[in-house]
Amino acid sequence: MKVSIVLGSISDKKISDEIVSVLKKFGIDYELEVISAHRTPERAYEFANTAIERGVGVIISIAGKAAHLGGVIAANTTLPVIGVPVKSSTLDGLDALLSTVQMPSGVPVASVAIDGGKNAALLAIEILAVSDENLRAKLVEHKNKLKEDVKKMNEELLKEE
Amino acid sequence: MKVSIVLGSISDKKISDEIVSVLKKFGIDYELEVISAHRTPERAYEFANTAIERGVGVIISIAGKAAHLGGVIAANTTLPVIGVPVKSSTLDGLDALLSTVQMPSGVPVASVAIDGGKNAALLAIEILAVSDENLRAKLVEHKNKLKEDVKKMNEELLKEE
Amino acid sequence: MKVSIVLGSISDKKISDEIVSVLKKFGIDYELEVISAHRTPERAYEFANTAIERGVGVIISIAGKAAHLGGVIAANTTLPVIGVPVKSSTLDGLDALLSTVQMPSGVPVASVAIDGGKNAALLAIEILAVSDENLRAKLVEHKNKLKEDVKKMNEELLKEE
Amino acid sequence: MKVSIVLGSISDKKISDEIVSVLKKFGIDYELEVISAHRTPERAYEFANTAIERGVGVIISIAGKAAHLGGVIAANTTLPVIGVPVKSSTLDGLDALLSTVQMPSGVPVASVAIDGGKNAALLAIEILAVSDENLRAKLVEHKNKLKEDVKKMNEELLKEE
Amino acid sequence: MKVSIVLGSISDKKISDEIVSVLKKFGIDYELEVISAHRTPERAYEFANTAIERGVGVIISIAGKAAHLGGVIAANTTLPVIGVPVKSSTLDGLDALLSTVQMPSGVPVASVAIDGGKNAALLAIEILAVSDENLRAKLVEHKNKLKEDVKKMNEELLKEE
Amino acid sequence: MKVSIVLGSISDKKISDEIVSVLKKFGIDYELEVISAHRTPERAYEFANTAIERGVGVIISIAGKAAHLGGVIAANTTLPVIGVPVKSSTLDGLDALLSTVQMPSGVPVASVAIDGGKNAALLAIEILAVSDENLRAKLVEHKNKLKEDVKKMNEELLKEE
Amino acid sequence: MKVSIVLGSISDKKISDEIVSVLKKFGIDYELEVISAHRTPERAYEFANTAIERGVGVIISIAGKAAHLGGVIAANTTLPVIGVPVKSSTLDGLDALLSTVQMPSGVPVASVAIDGGKNAALLAIEILAVSDENLRAKLVEHKNKLKEDVKKMNEELLKEE
Amino acid sequence: MKVSIVLGSISDKKISDEIVSVLKKFGIDYELEVISAHRTPERAYEFANTAIERGVGVIISIAGKAAHLGGVIAANTTLPVIGVPVKSSTLDGLDALLSTVQMPSGVPVASVAIDGGKNAALLAIEILAVSDENLRAKLVEHKNKLKEDVKKMNEELLKEE
Repeated sequence: MKVSIVLGSISDKKISDEIVSVLKKFGIDYELEVISAHRTPERAYEFANTAIERGVGVIISIAGKAAHLGGVIAANTTLPVIGVPVKSSTLDGLDALLSTVQMPSGVPVASVAIDGGKNAALLAIEILAVSDENLRAKLVEHKNKLKEDVKKMNEELLKEE
Repeated sequence: MKVSIVLGSISDKKISDEIVSVLKKFGIDYELEVISAHRTPERAYEFANTAIERGVGVIISIAGKAAHLGGVIAANTTLPVIGVPVKSSTLDGLDALLSTVQMPSGVPVASVAIDGGKNAALLAIEILAVSDENLRAKLVEHKNKLKEDVKKMNEELLKEE
Repeated sequence: MKVSIVLGSISDKKISDEIVSVLKKFGIDYELEVISAHRTPERAYEFANTAIERGVGVIISIAGKAAHLGGVIAANTTLPVIGVPVKSSTLDGLDALLSTVQMPSGVPVASVAIDGGKNAALLAIEILAVSDENLRAKLVEHKNKLKEDVKKMNEELLKEE
Repeated sequence: MKVSIVLGSISDKKISDEIVSVLKKFGIDYELEVISAHRTPERAYEFANTAIERGVGVIISIAGKAAHLGGVIAANTTLPVIGVPVKSSTLDGLDALLSTVQMPSGVPVASVAIDGGKNAALLAIEILAVSDENLRAKLVEHKNKLKEDVKKMNEELLKEE
Repeated sequence: MKVSIVLGSISDKKISDEIVSVLKKFGIDYELEVISAHRTPERAYEFANTAIERGVGVIISIAGKAAHLGGVIAANTTLPVIGVPVKSSTLDGLDALLSTVQMPSGVPVASVAIDGGKNAALLAIEILAVSDENLRAKLVEHKNKLKEDVKKMNEELLKEE
Repeated sequence: MKVSIVLGSISDKKISDEIVSVLKKFGIDYELEVISAHRTPERAYEFANTAIERGVGVIISIAGKAAHLGGVIAANTTLPVIGVPVKSSTLDGLDALLSTVQMPSGVPVASVAIDGGKNAALLAIEILAVSDENLRAKLVEHKNKLKEDVKKMNEELLKEE
Repeated sequence: MKVSIVLGSISDKKISDEIVSVLKKFGIDYELEVISAHRTPERAYEFANTAIERGVGVIISIAGKAAHLGGVIAANTTLPVIGVPVKSSTLDGLDALLSTVQMPSGVPVASVAIDGGKNAALLAIEILAVSDENLRAKLVEHKNKLKEDVKKMNEELLKEE
Repeated sequence: MKVSIVLGSISDKKISDEIVSVLKKFGIDYELEVISAHRTPERAYEFANTAIERGVGVIISIAGKAAHLGGVIAANTTLPVIGVPVKSSTLDGLDALLSTVQMPSGVPVASVAIDGGKNAALLAIEILAVSDENLRAKLVEHKNKLKEDVKKMNEELLKEE
């Protein structure tokens, strides 16, 4: 199964690049498309409704300001939808965070941190790994790598002392 | 031309009642429907796309939390859309306000105050009055009535002194 | 009918330039003036009271900080008033947003996003288009152009892959 | 010289009562009027412009939500204007606070705490006392009374132990 | 596979009841335990580390204030962890929301709305349904039921008119 | 009578320079001192207690973060105290604003906008002008100059068109 | 060594009661006094300066709104000062939190959660226990009791199932 | 006794450098380690549990975003834990502040200001000085040095006049 990544605008590409980079490391197939909840609403509708038949397992939506994209996608599919709120030029991302996470009862969007592309990718992988032992093993490796990273930080810290 | 009022949920009826009450005073025709951006997305799409042929001039959308309804409607019509952010049980309406007002470039929603049903109705009337002198005359009367209200408040104030 | 654009200060010109640019594309006539709610209150009063006789259909007010300009204009006219809250050096525009959108009952201001000049212009055009079929046709074209923009973003996305 | 108290609405009377109560204790003359920046803008203009000839020394303005009243008054007088932001049903008074205190350069409003009627009265008295030694003596007494209040609180505390 | 529900305190039971109620409707097995990130840290560690062997597919964590529970669980498992921020007596749930959603890079928690128990349950089911067609079918039914609910709201609306 | 300007730190000098510049234009005498509520509390105490005998009429206090300086000064004098909240490296000045304006009942501080040095000076002058007709005349001139400024802005606007 | 508890007002007694209750359980001596940073500044000064000679080891300060009490105490002693921000009628305690925690460099106040009386007491005990093994042993017991509490919550949870 | 400094990431080193610098001036022994609540949870657990036997008297934890590190450490030791919330790329440090300070009842963390490394060090020293008269004498010297700093600021101010 692949991960579908939807950008509200080409300006969100910095975030989608982070996601793609993580997915590639885990060997996960993905698709990538700019879809705007407000400028191309029919495409958002069609895209979400046909995601399952395209072999998608999880959808990651990236949007800023009054970030409706995740909610619009989630309204039209039963796949889990992960929302990445994006910081724009005002309000420091608070608008996107609340627009993404405060979904009304009945239609969830899984929000990660503002500009949290990397974690969105990891969450998507964790979801796919629920029924994929090989993927889970890679997540265990990843967790070990995180520990290695901290070890290296400590070596760096000692050197600088 | 009539005003179309869309509620995200029946729980927003207190707000729509205020709107209906103002519209009736001004003799404006209206339609009223519960449409959820997330639970009935096709209906939102269809509703917005056919509003003009139904004789609608302005749409008022009422929604709380991650309030996407106004944006979803605005994405599918060229009519002016007024959004009323609704206060819910957490965050004091800030989530609905930011989700309503912070629309990305290209698709505006006209936001009024949190729980501002009455002002949404007045704004809708002002919009219809742009090309309707009779309606404008009623707005002038309304502005005079506001002055009368303040006069009465002052009489009340003097009495209590 | 023309659109009237009021700037609280010359420092808001970046926003008014965006508005003028959109209005010109749609062939809409406009007027432009710096009026300060606090420094030239009589002019604000006179300006708002005579807007209709000047042939104005909608007023757009641009102001930052404790942004009273929209409210002061709205208090003195029955025309629809659109407020653009402007981000200044502190509080990221939240002060201007709340001062613009939280208008008390009876006198609405239609708020768009912080620094949302382009959407203010589009909203003004939507309002004028309520009784102007030619203008509406241009809005439909504009909505199609938005879709084209997204299409181009996707082409750009594919190229970079 | 007297203190002028302006209420944005009769619903702010709880705050003006607190102010009146303090002014009476200090033997200060006052006037009291409901004036709305948005519903009776001409009266606000006239009221502010004639305040000095009415013998007013300081103006206290009380208003909630997008609280423009203080700014509108300050725009039309050279008297010091004290603003009391009022908490309303949403946003816990933050909207009124920012609308009152974040005045642009050139036209100050002296803001006190949200719902801070008592402090507005004391500030008005401090301003009048700048050139009134008798009033200053009363303020010294008041400061002593505050110390007495704390002493009584400590007696109460000991009793309950 | 079952869903594991962890409460930071027995006071969060109102939220877990909502979750359990949804899971039962979908026929999903679950486990339920109070674990405190701060009072029983060893148990949190052990619980997370052994969740996979207990047959858990998704973990839902419920916590208020400086809500660390989701993060502590996520640190010790490769299962997807859903966090429900809980509103407590101050700050309206903003503290719990930010503590849950703003996870640093490498260890995601999927946040739903403040007090969003029902959506947490639905998200957990969507995750399990990625590899379970029967469950997916039930989600499609659920989406249809949401539409029915809106239909009923409209009938109610018409009756009251 | 002179105006006393107190800086919490030498880093606030940019704000005090603005104040001094306005006071000089109005020909007002002033004194200037760095006093820290937390580093030199005895000096704050002594300074406030002796301000009246030094011929001070109004005190302006400038401070950032948990801005206690205004409150500490106000606790020890019956002179009106104006507080200027200063934006520092985090929270955009909100901490200083709330620490300055939310004074408890009994001891007011008159807050102006974040970084609002110029308005603090004007407010101080308005306070001194309550009993000084010459100063009032200068304030009237200043208000006229504000109108001239707006006139010049409009000339600039026309030129650029 | 004893713990000194300072209340900004008798209205904070609910918080000090919680603190006293914890201190009694641990057998810690304490003193209790209402001192206002703004109403009794000399007492605050004297109280802080003589705390060490009174045998005080830690000071807990409780205050709401523009909560300066902790900072004023900390300015006049080298003892560790713990601040408890108190929620008042507006802004949900955010004003008190920022006024307490955002202390400028050089004079720290240790802030606990809004209304966090119990944790202030525990922190005070942890500080005294740094050089008191018996007290440390009691803290270990307390940590075990916390685990017991969670165990009981789980029993309660099972019973209700 | 020594002070233990824990960094959530090497990117927090700027803050720990400030802390180390103050500790060195006071001649306090310290240890320094990068430990991540989420990437190396076992090490956080072990580190906290063995801190007392390593001769640690106070722990300072430095972390940004959903800053759980202080809470995780505090959960596993009876030593006083000081938390320094770190500003990251979004939300201006508010997320870290609330995640650090809003600890639930039973397990306190002593929060200092956002990015407040220097104050964290001073607070740690104040805590150690509770039972160390020599250290207290150095704190008195430090307080005197703060006064000298202000004196120098005033000399600088006079020079520039």
